[in-house]
Amino acid sequence: MGSGFGRLFRITTFGESHGGGLGAVIEGCPPGIAIDQEAVQKELDRRRPGQSELVSPRHEPDTVEILSGLFEGRTLGSPIGLLIRNRDADPSAYESIKDRYRPSHADFTTEAKYGIRNWQGGGRASARETVARVAAGAIAKQVLRAIVGTEVQAWVCAVGSVCAEIDPRSVTSAMVEANPMRCPDATAATEMEQRVRQARSTGDTVGGIIEWVATEVPAGLGDPVFDKLEADLAKGLMSLPASKGFEIGSGFRGSSMTGSEHNDAFEPVEGSSVPRTVTNHSGGVQGGISNGMPITGRVAFKPVSTIFREQQTVSATTGEAVSIRPKGRHDPCVVPRAVPMVEAMVALVLLDHVLRQRGQVG
Amino acid sequence: MGSGFGRLFRITTFGESHGGGLGAVIEGCPPGIAIDQEAVQKELDRRRPGQSELVSPRHEPDTVEILSGLFEGRTLGSPIGLLIRNRDADPSAYESIKDRYRPSHADFTTEAKYGIRNWQGGGRASARETVARVAAGAIAKQVLRAIVGTEVQAWVCAVGSVCAEIDPRSVTSAMVEANPMRCPDATAATEMEQRVRQARSTGDTVGGIIEWVATEVPAGLGDPVFDKLEADLAKGLMSLPASKGFEIGSGFRGSSMTGSEHNDAFEPVEGSSVPRTVTNHSGGVQGGISNGMPITGRVAFKPVSTIFREQQTVSATTGEAVSIRPKGRHDPCVVPRAVPMVEAMVALVLLDHVLRQRGQVG
Amino acid sequence: MGSGFGRLFRITTFGESHGGGLGAVIEGCPPGIAIDQEAVQKELDRRRPGQSELVSPRHEPDTVEILSGLFEGRTLGSPIGLLIRNRDADPSAYESIKDRYRPSHADFTTEAKYGIRNWQGGGRASARETVARVAAGAIAKQVLRAIVGTEVQAWVCAVGSVCAEIDPRSVTSAMVEANPMRCPDATAATEMEQRVRQARSTGDTVGGIIEWVATEVPAGLGDPVFDKLEADLAKGLMSLPASKGFEIGSGFRGSSMTGSEHNDAFEPVEGSSVPRTVTNHSGGVQGGISNGMPITGRVAFKPVSTIFREQQTVSATTGEAVSIRPKGRHDPCVVPRAVPMVEAMVALVLLDHVLRQRGQVG
Amino acid sequence: MGSGFGRLFRITTFGESHGGGLGAVIEGCPPGIAIDQEAVQKELDRRRPGQSELVSPRHEPDTVEILSGLFEGRTLGSPIGLLIRNRDADPSAYESIKDRYRPSHADFTTEAKYGIRNWQGGGRASARETVARVAAGAIAKQVLRAIVGTEVQAWVCAVGSVCAEIDPRSVTSAMVEANPMRCPDATAATEMEQRVRQARSTGDTVGGIIEWVATEVPAGLGDPVFDKLEADLAKGLMSLPASKGFEIGSGFRGSSMTGSEHNDAFEPVEGSSVPRTVTNHSGGVQGGISNGMPITGRVAFKPVSTIFREQQTVSATTGEAVSIRPKGRHDPCVVPRAVPMVEAMVALVLLDHVLRQRGQVG
Repeated sequence: MGSGFGRLFRITTFGESHGGGLGAVIEGCPPGIAIDQEAVQKELDRRRPGQSELVSPRHEPDTVEILSGLFEGRTLGSPIGLLIRNRDADPSAYESIKDRYRPSHADFTTEAKYGIRNWQGGGRASARETVARVAAGAIAKQVLRAIVGTEVQAWVCAVGSVCAEIDPRSVTSAMVEANPMRCPDATAATEMEQRVRQARSTGDTVGGIIEWVATEVPAGLGDPVFDKLEADLAKGLMSLPASKGFEIGSGFRGSSMTGSEHNDAFEPVEGSSVPRTVTNHSGGVQGGISNGMPITGRVAFKPVSTIFREQQTVSATTGEAVSIRPKGRHDPCVVPRAVPMVEAMVALVLLDHVLRQRGQVG
Repeated sequence: MGSGFGRLFRITTFGESHGGGLGAVIEGCPPGIAIDQEAVQKELDRRRPGQSELVSPRHEPDTVEILSGLFEGRTLGSPIGLLIRNRDADPSAYESIKDRYRPSHADFTTEAKYGIRNWQGGGRASARETVARVAAGAIAKQVLRAIVGTEVQAWVCAVGSVCAEIDPRSVTSAMVEANPMRCPDATAATEMEQRVRQARSTGDTVGGIIEWVATEVPAGLGDPVFDKLEADLAKGLMSLPASKGFEIGSGFRGSSMTGSEHNDAFEPVEGSSVPRTVTNHSGGVQGGISNGMPITGRVAFKPVSTIFREQQTVSATTGEAVSIRPKGRHDPCVVPRAVPMVEAMVALVLLDHVLRQRGQVG
Repeated sequence: MGSGFGRLFRITTFGESHGGGLGAVIEGCPPGIAIDQEAVQKELDRRRPGQSELVSPRHEPDTVEILSGLFEGRTLGSPIGLLIRNRDADPSAYESIKDRYRPSHADFTTEAKYGIRNWQGGGRASARETVARVAAGAIAKQVLRAIVGTEVQAWVCAVGSVCAEIDPRSVTSAMVEANPMRCPDATAATEMEQRVRQARSTGDTVGGIIEWVATEVPAGLGDPVFDKLEADLAKGLMSLPASKGFEIGSGFRGSSMTGSEHNDAFEPVEGSSVPRTVTNHSGGVQGGISNGMPITGRVAFKPVSTIFREQQTVSATTGEAVSIRPKGRHDPCVVPRAVPMVEAMVALVLLDHVLRQRGQVG
Repeated sequence: MGSGFGRLFRITTFGESHGGGLGAVIEGCPPGIAIDQEAVQKELDRRRPGQSELVSPRHEPDTVEILSGLFEGRTLGSPIGLLIRNRDADPSAYESIKDRYRPSHADFTTEAKYGIRNWQGGGRASARETVARVAAGAIAKQVLRAIVGTEVQAWVCAVGSVCAEIDPRSVTSAMVEANPMRCPDATAATEMEQRVRQARSTGDTVGGIIEWVATEVPAGLGDPVFDKLEADLAKGLMSLPASKGFEIGSGFRGSSMTGSEHNDAFEPVEGSSVPRTVTNHSGGVQGGISNGMPITGRVAFKPVSTIFREQQTVSATTGEAVSIRPKGRHDPCVVPRAVPMVEAMVALVLLDHVLRQRGQVG
C-alpha cells in the first residue's frame, strides 16, 4: 500500500535510486489500444538527467522494457509491466554523509518511519522514482488520446522570481520544447536559464512553478465529494517530489475575488449540447466534475534540497550537532525535468476518471 | 466508489441537501476509545448555518445520532454509523431556476455526469454534504488525541484582500472562536466582517483563505511516493467545496526561494532522539513523511457561487441563452464555517496515517 | 475498512444486533435506474425473523428507510443510504451469560480482537448484520436486471442429511417460495421441516446447503488472476455468517473427475456469436471469466451455534472452566433465511463486475 | 485493478506465459525483516515445471530477481519488485489451434472479455501466472514467521478418487516433500502416482484436493463482516487456477451435523489467557476471526483442461463447430505443484490480516 495510484487505471511502482531498477505495473488498461513504444521512450527522455547542462549530469539512458500486456503492438487488457534499469548509480558520493541527515531531505524521516534506510542515494525519496510514473503516464496519454481525444501539456511558468507571460490557450508542444527550460516565453526562458546557472555556480538551487492544461476533456469526469477531479489532481501533483503548492483555475488569486467577478457565465455553443463558459476561473471543474472547458492548474516546486554548501544538521548515530556538505549529482532546478512528470500525473488522473465514468454511467 | 475517504480509518458518506438526511460510516476505528458525544455536536455547531449573521440563515439544528459502534461511551472497533437529519430543506427556492444552470455551480456538471439531477438544492454538491465529514472528523480528532496526542487547529487568515497577521505558533482555540470570522487577529477580523457585510449588502460574495496547523504529530507518518502526507492532505482539503488552492509549508512562496534559504537545518533537542528544525519551510513534512515539527498549510476558497444578481447562463431544457437570478439561503462568505471542515479533513488524514504506520511498522 | 464490499458498486454497512439500527451505503450505483422500493422490502421480509415457525421468533418489522440517492423513484448516481431500525432488541437474555463465551460463537474472538465487546447480543457477529446487505442486494438485483437482464435465484438443497433432488434449470421463484424451507423439492421440503422441528424440540440446531444459479449473465465478467469471478463469489458467500464451504460448478465432486469427463465442449448457438457448452461443469466461469452459461454454485452452512443445552466453556473474567446454557431467540436452522442473503451477495458480486467490465472495456 | 491482492501487505502481479517475464510488486512489507533469498527460490522450485515426471516438462529455471526493497538482506519497507523471466516459451504448439477455443480453457472467455488475445499460450490465464504469487508468498511466509511465528503447510489429500488418511496435526514439511505427489500418506501417494501416470498415458488428466493448516496464528485476525478471515482465504484460494471448491474447518461435512455435535467447547490452557477448543470443527475461525487454534481448510482442483484427445469446440473465426486436439506441455495433474501455491495464498492472507489487526488495534 502506498505505491499505487488510481482506481481503475491503476499504477503500482517500485524501485530505488540505487538498486536493480525501477518499474511500474499498469492494471486496468483498456484492451486493443495501439501503443507507440517510441513515444513512451520520448517522455522518459524528457525526464532524463543529463539532457542539458541545466540539469543533473547523472548518466542514465532510462531505456524502458515493456515486459507484458502488449501483443502485436496493442494492449491486451492484462497488466503492463515496465522496467527501467539503473545504470549509473554511484553510492560512493553518499558514503561520507551516510550518518548525517541532509537538511530538507527525507533521510531523517525515512529512518524515523522505517528504522532502516538505504543510504546509497535517496531510495524511494529520490526524484529518480518518477521515471516509473513518467513511463506509465506516457501510456496513459496515448490511451486517453485514443479513447477521448484529451491532450495534456505542461510548461515552466516561473523560476525563482522570474515569471513568464503566457496565454495558456496559445501554448504548443513545440514552444515548450524549444528551449531547455521548457518555458514557452522565450525571453523569460533566457532569464530563467541565467537564474539557474547563477544558482548552480554558487552551489545553490532555485525553485519554480509549472502550469498545465488539459484540453478536449469530456464533461462529466470526477466525483462530487471526496474524489473531486481537482482533489485527485491535487493528490497526484502534490505526490511529486518537491511540490509545495497546487492550484486549480483561479487558485489562491480566486480567494480575493468576489462572486460576481469569479462566476463563469455560461453561453451556448452552436451545434453542441455542451455550453461553454465565457471565462474559466473554475479551471474546467465545477463541483468536482469537469465541465468540458480546458482544465488548468499550477504546481509550485521548492528549490532542490541538495546544495553544495556547508549546512547544520545532526548525526544519525549520535544525535549531536554536526555539519554536512553534500556531494553527488543533482539538479540546480527541478522544474524543466518536472514538466513531463506533471503531464504524466494529470494524464493518469484523467484516464482513471474516464474509465470510472463509463463504469458507473456507461 | 467516490464517497469514501481513508484507507484504515475510512469514512463513507451519503446524503443530499434536500432529502432524508446525511450521514457517514466510519470503518476501522481503534477500539476502546472514549468518545465525548457533546464534543462531536460542538464541531457540528461550529459548521452549522445560522450561527451568526455572517452566514446562511438556513435553520438546521444538525443534531447527530450515533447509530452504532459505541458501547458504554467507548468505541467497539465496529463501524460507527452517524446520521444527521435534514430539517429545514426548502425546495421552493429552486423551483423557478430548475431549468437554468447556475453559473459556477455543479448544476450543469451533475447533469453532464449522471443525466439526472435533484434540482431541489445542490444535491451532493451542496456544502451541506460537509456535515457528515465534520461529524466523522470530530471523532477522528478525539481518537487522534487519545492515541498520539495530536491537535489540529485552523483559522481564517484572509477574506477578499483583507489579510490577517498571525503567528501560527501563538494561535489558540479561544482566539479563533473569539469572533464570528474565526480569525485570531481581532483587528483583521473586524475588517473581514465589514468586507462580508458589504458583499452581502450588494448581493455578492467574497472568498478567503484558511490556515491550519497540526501539532504533536509523530515523526514517520506518510508514504514516500503517491501517498505522501502532503498529497493526502491536498486531496482531503481540495475535496472541500469551493477550494481552489492548497499549500504545505512554504507553498507557492517557496518556489521563489533558493535552496540555501529554504532548507531547514536540523538541531538536536535535549532529552529527545528526534531533532527539530530551526526553520519550518517544509511545513512538517520531508519526502512525504512527517518530521515531528508542526504540519502547516493553507487552503484557498473561491467566493460562493450563489450571488443574488442577474447573470447569463443557458437553459437546461432548450440550451438557449437565458438569464438567472438565484434565490435561497446562502453564505456571503464560506470561510468561517469552513474552519471546522478543514480541521476535520486534516484530522481524518493524520489518523489514517497513524494507523497505517502502526500497521506496517508496528 | 472491513465493512465494505465491491469496487465500483460498493456497499459499506454498519450496525449491531442491539443498538440504534443497521444500514448500508451504496456507492457507484448507475444513475437513472427505476427502483421498486416494495421489492426491496420484500427481500427483507424473506430474510426477516418470525416469518415462520421454523425460524427465530424475534419480532423485527425490518422496515427499510431510503435516506438518499433516489429522486422521483430513480437512482441519482449518488450514494444510497439505507437504514433499518432495531425494534425488538432484548439484551436481558444476554445478561446471565455476558461473562461466559458461547461455544462456536464470536464472543471470545471479538474480545480477543478488540479487547471490548457489546455483550448485549452478537454485535457485528450477529446474523442480524445481514439485513443491511440484503437491502443493498435487493437494489443490486434491480439494477442488474435493468442493465444486463441477469436473474439470481437460490434455494435450499440440503438440511442435515436430507438432500433434495433438483434440476437447477427448472427452479422458479414460485417453487422456492412455495414452502417455508425454500426448497423447490416439495417432498424433501417436508422432510427438512421435520428435521428442523426435531432439532428445535431437543434444543439443538441443524446445518444445510444452499444452491444458487445466475442466468443471463453476459460473457466476459471477471478478471483473470485474483479477482476471478468465482474468487469474488467465494469471498462474498464465505462472508455470510455460518458458511463453511463454497463450490462453483462441479465443486469438490469435480476433483475426482478426469479432464475428458469434466471438459465442457463448445457448440455453436444459431443466431448468436456466443457459443454454448454442452455440459456446464465449469459452472459458467472459465479462467475466472463468465462464459455466458448459467453460473451455478453451492454454499454450506454449519448448524447454528446457539443451542439450548448445557455446554462447557471458559469464563471471560476468570478464564476458568464453567458451563453455559444460552437463552434468547434463535433459529434452529439458518438456511431458509439465508436464501435471500445468498442471492444478495451473488447479485452484488455480479453487478460490481458488470460495471468493472464496462469501465475497462467500454 | 484485478491483479492486486491484499490491503496492507499487498501484491500486484504482471506477466503472461509467453512474453518478457512475470513478476510481482509487494507493497507494505514491514521493514527490517531479514529475507532468505534462497528460501524464496526454493518455493519457486517446488512450483516449477519439470521437477518430476508427474508434471509438465516445460523447462523453466524460474530464477527470481529481487529488483528493489531489500538492503543488506533486510526489507526496507519500500516496494519489493520481483522478476522471473520466461525462458522456454514455445508459441509454436499454439499456432495450429489459435483459432479454436480449447474446451474449459479461458480462450473463449478472454476473447469475450477483451476482444483481443495472445494466443501464444494461455496469457494471464496460464497457471504460469502463479510463479509471481509463489515468489511473493515465499516472502510473506518469512515475514509471518518473523513477526508472529505462524507456519503454513499444505499437502495433497486426494487425487481422483484416491484419498489419503492424514491427521493434520502430525504432518511435517519433510513428510510432504518425501514424494513427488506431496502427499504425506506414503501408501496413498503411491496409488496417486499410478493414477496420474494412467491419466497421462491415455492423454487424460485428473483432479485432486489439497488440504492445508496454519499453526501459531494469533487470536483476533479477521474482520467480522465482509473481510472475515475465511472469506479472504476463500477468495485467495479460489483465485488459484482450476480451483472449484473451498472449505474451512468442517466444510460441507459440517452442514449435515447438529449444533451439539459441531460446537467446539472451550477449555482453559494452563499458563495462558487464550483458551483452546476441545474440537476444531470451526477450523480456527469463529465469526470470521481467528481463535488461536490451527486454521484448517481444503481446496478442490478440477482436472487440467488440456487433454491430448480430440474434442468438440467452435471456431474463433467462423463460429462453426470444429474439432480440436491440443498439443504442448501440460500437467496430467496439477495438485503436486499447487501445494506451494496454496501455501503462498494462505500466507498472503494471514500476513495482511496481521498488519491490519495491528493497524486498527495496535
